Amino acid sequence: MRLRNIKNKDNILSKSKYLIKDIYEYKGKYKELFNNNNPIMLEIGMGKGKFIIENAILNKNNNYIGIERADSILAKAIKKIENNDVNNLRLIKCDADDLVNIFSNEIDTIYLNFSDPWPKNRHEKRRLTSKQFLDIYSSIFKDNNKIILKTDNRAFFEYSIVSLNQYGYKISNITFDLHNTDEDYITTEYEDKFANEGKPIYKLECLKM
Amino acid sequence: MRLRNIKNKDNILSKSKYLIKDIYEYKGKYKELFNNNNPIMLEIGMGKGKFIIENAILNKNNNYIGIERADSILAKAIKKIENNDVNNLRLIKCDADDLVNIFSNEIDTIYLNFSDPWPKNRHEKRRLTSKQFLDIYSSIFKDNNKIILKTDNRAFFEYSIVSLNQYGYKISNITFDLHNTDEDYITTEYEDKFANEGKPIYKLECLKM
Repeated sequence: MRLRNIKNKDNILSKSKYLIKDIYEYKGKYKELFNNNNPIMLEIGMGKGKFIIENAILNKNNNYIGIERADSILAKAIKKIENNDVNNLRLIKCDADDLVNIFSNEIDTIYLNFSDPWPKNRHEKRRLTSKQFLDIYSSIFKDNNKIILKTDNRAFFEYSIVSLNQYGYKISNITFDLHNTDEDYITTEYEDKFANEGKPIYKLECLKM
Repeated sequence: MRLRNIKNKDNILSKSKYLIKDIYEYKGKYKELFNNNNPIMLEIGMGKGKFIIENAILNKNNNYIGIERADSILAKAIKKIENNDVNNLRLIKCDADDLVNIFSNEIDTIYLNFSDPWPKNRHEKRRLTSKQFLDIYSSIFKDNNKIILKTDNRAFFEYSIVSLNQYGYKISNITFDLHNTDEDYITTEYEDKFANEGKPIYKLECLKM
């Protein structure tokens, strides 16, 4: 069982035209890869890909890149993509702290969806809204730095408000219960699960000029 | 009943040494009124005064001023004060939009406790964290502008985060459930009521240099 899974994963990953194999090849040149000047939207930790695939299908005037580090999850996302034809979407297998080597001043918006909250104080640096990661994002953003964050984790949301704000981001939009607003939203797999359990979904958008 | 109440109120208000009678008399000179250089903390809408009186008793190195516009509520607060001896506390009967005529660059911290949320969009300007009021606060703050806000109203809290942040305030501390943190806090009358009903109390502190 274990072997068959691995064989499948490798096969799916190596064959997919959506997965970028040499992850450092297009640094600073994603415009050329997509062959247009459309904004590039990056989801860090895209999981099984529901959110980014639906976005890519609905918004043809944006390019989307999803990163994820687990082979098995990437394989599941790729299976979903192959059923569609989404030329404005690519996937990269990497860690978030490697982003600085993968992109250079070319990202328009970063999506952080249901990121690991790393609740222990000693793990603060691992949170995707810590100063350490905000520094990384600064090097990959194009002009405006825009982050759109969703989470079900209250402590991570509280932490993120303060961290983003202290870093100079201005919050333009915030809700503590996204699914009870009038806003249109595309959900992630986790989000559907949490919302079905009756958990509120926190969301914010912020911008640093 | 009504007459007796009014008579009482007037009597209580006029006799109290804690109530400032000529509300414009000390503009820019509150340091002289208190006869020290201690920080001046202002509570806008102090209600029956529990929060500010307990603060004044516990923190003798701060001066406290509470404002409130309703005579009957002021009278209740004064009754509470007269049982103690709190030289570092004064009350002023006024509206928040008159603050610009009452103080001049002398306030250290503003407390907004359970302010009216004014939920309708057309009443946005009346919210005590609207740009209109933040402009007023800027003219009465000394150096650092520090606001400490508590509310049970989620929409008002969401609004305040964005408004304060857009105005240039940096949030240094935030919680969506104050009474389930380790923080020490002095409650207001409303807060006790809401917390007893199991409502979460939102709190934030923010600073503008």
